[in-house]
Amino acid sequence: MDSNYNEPGAGNIVDAEHQRARQLSRTRVVGQKERRVDARPLVTGAPVYAAEFEQPGMLHGRILHSPHAHANIRHIDTSGALALPGVWAVLTHHDLPRVAHTTAGQPYPELSPYDMYVLDTRVRYIGDWVAFVAAETPAIADAALQLIEVDYEILPAVFDPLEAMGDGAPQLHELDVTHPNLGKHLGDIYDPEHNIAAHEVITNGDFEATMREADLIVEGEYRVPHIAHAMLEPHVCVAYMDGYDRLIVVSSTQVPYHTRRKLAAVMQLPIARVRVVKPRVGGGFGGKQEMLLEPVAAALAMKTRRPVRIEYTRHEEFTSGRLRHPMSITMRSGVKRDGTLVAISMRSLGNAGAYGTHSLTVTRATGHKTLCLYRAQAYYFEATAAYTNLPVTGAMRGYGAPQGFFALESHIDEIARRLNMDPLAFRRKNHVRKGDWDPIEGEEIDGNWHSKRQFRSCGLPECIEKGAAAIGWNEPFERGDGNPIRRGRGMAIAMQGSGVLGFEIGGASIKLNEDGSFNVMTGATDIGQGSDTVLAQIAAEVLGVGMEKIVMHSSDTDSSVFDYGAYASSTTYISGGGVKVAAEKVRQHILEVAGDLLDCAIEDMSIRDGVIYTPRGRSSLTIADIANETLYGRHRQQIMAKGDFWAEDSPAPFYAQFIEVEVDTETGQVRVTKAVNALDLGRAINPALATGQVEGAVAMALGYALSEEVKFDEMGRVRNPGFVDYKVMSTLDMPEMTTFLIEDTEDTGPFGAKSAGEVPINCMAPAVANAVYDAVGIRIRSLPITPEKVLQALDMKKARK
Amino acid sequence: MDSNYNEPGAGNIVDAEHQRARQLSRTRVVGQKERRVDARPLVTGAPVYAAEFEQPGMLHGRILHSPHAHANIRHIDTSGALALPGVWAVLTHHDLPRVAHTTAGQPYPELSPYDMYVLDTRVRYIGDWVAFVAAETPAIADAALQLIEVDYEILPAVFDPLEAMGDGAPQLHELDVTHPNLGKHLGDIYDPEHNIAAHEVITNGDFEATMREADLIVEGEYRVPHIAHAMLEPHVCVAYMDGYDRLIVVSSTQVPYHTRRKLAAVMQLPIARVRVVKPRVGGGFGGKQEMLLEPVAAALAMKTRRPVRIEYTRHEEFTSGRLRHPMSITMRSGVKRDGTLVAISMRSLGNAGAYGTHSLTVTRATGHKTLCLYRAQAYYFEATAAYTNLPVTGAMRGYGAPQGFFALESHIDEIARRLNMDPLAFRRKNHVRKGDWDPIEGEEIDGNWHSKRQFRSCGLPECIEKGAAAIGWNEPFERGDGNPIRRGRGMAIAMQGSGVLGFEIGGASIKLNEDGSFNVMTGATDIGQGSDTVLAQIAAEVLGVGMEKIVMHSSDTDSSVFDYGAYASSTTYISGGGVKVAAEKVRQHILEVAGDLLDCAIEDMSIRDGVIYTPRGRSSLTIADIANETLYGRHRQQIMAKGDFWAEDSPAPFYAQFIEVEVDTETGQVRVTKAVNALDLGRAINPALATGQVEGAVAMALGYALSEEVKFDEMGRVRNPGFVDYKVMSTLDMPEMTTFLIEDTEDTGPFGAKSAGEVPINCMAPAVANAVYDAVGIRIRSLPITPEKVLQALDMKKARK
Repeated sequence: MDSNYNEPGAGNIVDAEHQRARQLSRTRVVGQKERRVDARPLVTGAPVYAAEFEQPGMLHGRILHSPHAHANIRHIDTSGALALPGVWAVLTHHDLPRVAHTTAGQPYPELSPYDMYVLDTRVRYIGDWVAFVAAETPAIADAALQLIEVDYEILPAVFDPLEAMGDGAPQLHELDVTHPNLGKHLGDIYDPEHNIAAHEVITNGDFEATMREADLIVEGEYRVPHIAHAMLEPHVCVAYMDGYDRLIVVSSTQVPYHTRRKLAAVMQLPIARVRVVKPRVGGGFGGKQEMLLEPVAAALAMKTRRPVRIEYTRHEEFTSGRLRHPMSITMRSGVKRDGTLVAISMRSLGNAGAYGTHSLTVTRATGHKTLCLYRAQAYYFEATAAYTNLPVTGAMRGYGAPQGFFALESHIDEIARRLNMDPLAFRRKNHVRKGDWDPIEGEEIDGNWHSKRQFRSCGLPECIEKGAAAIGWNEPFERGDGNPIRRGRGMAIAMQGSGVLGFEIGGASIKLNEDGSFNVMTGATDIGQGSDTVLAQIAAEVLGVGMEKIVMHSSDTDSSVFDYGAYASSTTYISGGGVKVAAEKVRQHILEVAGDLLDCAIEDMSIRDGVIYTPRGRSSLTIADIANETLYGRHRQQIMAKGDFWAEDSPAPFYAQFIEVEVDTETGQVRVTKAVNALDLGRAINPALATGQVEGAVAMALGYALSEEVKFDEMGRVRNPGFVDYKVMSTLDMPEMTTFLIEDTEDTGPFGAKSAGEVPINCMAPAVANAVYDAVGIRIRSLPITPEKVLQALDMKKARK
Repeated sequence: MDSNYNEPGAGNIVDAEHQRARQLSRTRVVGQKERRVDARPLVTGAPVYAAEFEQPGMLHGRILHSPHAHANIRHIDTSGALALPGVWAVLTHHDLPRVAHTTAGQPYPELSPYDMYVLDTRVRYIGDWVAFVAAETPAIADAALQLIEVDYEILPAVFDPLEAMGDGAPQLHELDVTHPNLGKHLGDIYDPEHNIAAHEVITNGDFEATMREADLIVEGEYRVPHIAHAMLEPHVCVAYMDGYDRLIVVSSTQVPYHTRRKLAAVMQLPIARVRVVKPRVGGGFGGKQEMLLEPVAAALAMKTRRPVRIEYTRHEEFTSGRLRHPMSITMRSGVKRDGTLVAISMRSLGNAGAYGTHSLTVTRATGHKTLCLYRAQAYYFEATAAYTNLPVTGAMRGYGAPQGFFALESHIDEIARRLNMDPLAFRRKNHVRKGDWDPIEGEEIDGNWHSKRQFRSCGLPECIEKGAAAIGWNEPFERGDGNPIRRGRGMAIAMQGSGVLGFEIGGASIKLNEDGSFNVMTGATDIGQGSDTVLAQIAAEVLGVGMEKIVMHSSDTDSSVFDYGAYASSTTYISGGGVKVAAEKVRQHILEVAGDLLDCAIEDMSIRDGVIYTPRGRSSLTIADIANETLYGRHRQQIMAKGDFWAEDSPAPFYAQFIEVEVDTETGQVRVTKAVNALDLGRAINPALATGQVEGAVAMALGYALSEEVKFDEMGRVRNPGFVDYKVMSTLDMPEMTTFLIEDTEDTGPFGAKSAGEVPINCMAPAVANAVYDAVGIRIRSLPITPEKVLQALDMKKARK
């Protein structure tokens, strides 16, 4: 039979099926720039943040901070403070259970040392906690702080990590290493006697032997400073004991479930008696992946039996919050004359500050998240973090990667320049390809590398091509030769993960209501990035309804599905995966009932805009009809399902950034005038939000590149604890921008999505350094690239001539 | 082989299995007098009620009530009220969507006529709603009410149901019968032209023909009055629009889900934008199975964009709440000389008041819940409820049954006395038996009775025997002959349902936490009866943990499993059934993981006190271990399941009550001195709470028997709207009591349970009437049995002599 001949009936059926298949493959909500589900309260200023949560009779908590970088507390006299009218409680280390813990919000057992107590007999940095006060007003609480008399025995302090690890340095911690996690994870990598908070070595191949095959060896040391999260909403929470004697904490946290577990432990309550509620969060950037103020509010609420609210001031955020790890990173690599990278190494030394928290995992990530970007025959990575008497460094967007990529992507540029190669061409030749196995995340056993992940999706080539074309990488541009303001171009590429490899789970339970709407209860944590909107889109897509039918709730440890929280770029991939599973179960359930009513096979039906379609077209049934049939009719049941998702993988998003800068050779000021950003995120569930992630990252990374640095005086005191002296970038500093979203489908992700939140933070700083080199021929190897450093380098360059 | 000979190994295994089977069949939490889960807040007075819910900036709502029994509203001038400082809104019928509805909290479509609007152009009783005010304080709101000027066109009113159905009576409703439920359920039984709010006839057998076979026909008319629920917490709720523009209502309601649906309808919001939260409820007794104040608070909150709180005063509860239907009930039955009941009939006429709400279902229940207590060859039941210009009657504990049982059980006593038979012996001869089919709940088709339910469990014989023995029914007692205070004994039996036959669903979702505790989120509604405790016991029993491991949450329409609410004695049976299903799924899930870890078949394991046991005894695994294994280990998932239960049956609990009274022949006062109560509830999940239900019912039913009556003046105004003039019984009025819980296992119920909440309300009134007859030979056929009625009857008896 002629294959072009269709029997009328059969042809129609085939057409109908094809049409349905096309309809099914085309998403209707996923991929759309849907309005944020929280747009209304954010625009109208409705009180939705933890900071705005009020309770009748609420007291205000404040913290007394150490004025010394290192001291023993001999005695605390609280009598004056307690005598002040309006003061309800003053708590010192005597009043709190002595439970060793870490503030790092990580799964149990944490990979971080239990090296602290909520209040200790010793203080280890200026800003460390000494006592807590609860009073009827913040002003009374502040006044009470002044009345607490502390007798300190001042101890020698150390601020530099290298000094801290040296002989004769004061030892910050004498840990009783009894906690199970220490033996399991940290026994060989944690050395309090030498103030080593974390240490790791990864080798893949025989590095030194391979280096001998190189035609050229390039080495360089790069330095990155302490910086601050600068989230708009500081740490804030309200704690109270409810009528059932349960501890309720309404907190601006990225990790409600980890906080519940850790808070129960330090307060010595069963988990059943602790409930953590996360309302809107006004930004976290990793700073709220720590349990900071929750035990303070909890201890004061348990003592006073009144609700207690506590909020960090901006000053406290800088001095007693968490900062990004400063590091010095040495890169040493070997290349062939043709531009083939043969071996690459990175050694980093980070400053943990007074407590370990995320230091091990952050400093590991500096290599783990970066070196895998390039193919080589051998890799060497060594990371160390040392305790010092400075404020604590912890998790921050990128989680070690921005430090690593500043070093790596500056280093790659230097290699290419030394080879007289276009840095883009060098990267094209050496970057990771789809199908490659991770050369860092794994283990060398008997000389053989056992990788833990394969890069099954990689849109990096497309990112590079789109970005290069948009900026006109190979085209001439006005360089400003002869003018005081010179122009240059730079670029960098990067990758990240989607969650921590094999760690997180997240999910949701979904419930159908009479109007065909759904309650989606998720433990995922929207911290401003818009994840609730993305999760709602995933649910709406699967369920075949519009966004107005999805009621999001996140998160409340009493009613939400367990979730690891918002970190490591995990929410869309992991919690989104869980939402998808839950939605698919609910959809199946709806179609089972519909199939029974319509006498139609489940696989033959589809749902669109809340209407259930059969092969012959539109049926008269809607999801609302199914809801009413199940709640009031013959198929009585609550259609509701839980779904969760355990990621055994952490697919990498990729990013390429191309920029143009102006360098004022008279003032040293660098301005980024253009940025082309290309992000491979697998699938953009919401392109507007994904673009927002990129543009927000540009602003944040610009500060890292050009202006941000938390500085200390010789006593270890923060010199610029506020936005007057600590410059974050504003809209006025933003370059002209073009952003491409590249969708190299990740099969394990919901609708092909991997992550978008962190990877775009990684490129700006090295791209600026590379562009400055391109503009004026100076190589700045330390952040921020300030006018002083540029002028000094220009002077030195002139002097060398 | 000698069958008594055991091989050592095999014998041990058999023993172990037997022991495990014994352990499994013995419950450890179910059947225990566990402390109420809400004992702590109730004892400490912690703020847990809706009345105690506060919101910042909260306004106070008040209602303007009609001073006329029947009038059209010509005009309302709100300008004076609006001009009062502190007044935020005054709403009249002009300001509210004109959506016909019923306040009855029933499944959709309601069985009640949509005969009202939240605010109408006409008022139909003194207390009907005219306007709403929101102001900054309750006092300002009250003052504003005085400033609203209403021009009424007064209409003729009717108060007596018989008159209301007669020619020339003013017609209360001109309903446009377009709502789907009217055609479906009420088309033939609803006649607004004759003020008939409800009408139903049930016939089973040829009643008049069968009556001709009787040796004796007994007839009597019984009257019961309007009474009030007198719950301690009045109707109260707080409504506000949240930042997401959703309407949140925190309400003291028995029916959160029905309220959500109905509120969405009258406010013309999608259900997705309405959330109803039910905190502790301070008593409902059916009065809160109506949506009363929620639309008032909602309309005011939507108008003012501020939270609005509204609470009925005690006066309003009496005048504008809901009352129990007054009825006149005529019984007419035929018996054989040997005491065999051959035919029984009941005709009731109820007073619906101004709106229909629960009238159809309550007046139906008067026969449906009562006549099935006795075997006969023929039954006739006819129920009518008429609209009048009096306050609205609705649902109240027992839901029509107390009225019916006062008539039935007085009538049975009269029959027995006429036959010269012991009333107990008559009942033993004629009452329903296990295995009987319901003679009323069903349909006669072509002369054949098709019953809808079989009584598969019936502990009535044991109730009767235990009760009779305890009071010494057949033993002589001091009757006080010759004294002014005379003693007598009376008894009555009763039955009820466990939910409405085939209607309700309820359930829970259950989630496992790291400490081996569980969050149980249920839509069930603890209204003070202790259902949260009972549901927690069911969950704890199935899951093999103690009560401290169960965290109850009920209920919140956003996060709870759909539930029909607390009515019709349904919660233990139906929601409890759902909790059991959910807990069984979670248990199965736990054992699957444990089985994988222990390499043991699921059916070979058991859980006790949170420890997982294998056939060889205790394992090292606990539920907490499984939680940690699933949340952080190799079996990653949130163990969580939803369960719901659709009851296709409504198993009857049974009750027998034996009392002793003292009748003061000089004052006419009747005092109940002893009560023996025997309740067959299938299984007492919590004997303390079940006994509490019985003892509470004794107090409440004593009021019905002896003192309670809402009285009206000739204008239709409540004469006694408060506890000074409306006497409820206190602990001082309580008799000496013995309560037996009889457990005739109901196989369809959780752990064999059926219901306990309503059935014990049914017997006291007829038992008192019967005991008064026994004491002094007078038959009081109307409630309450006041001193006036007793004295008058004694005088008439003397006069007859």
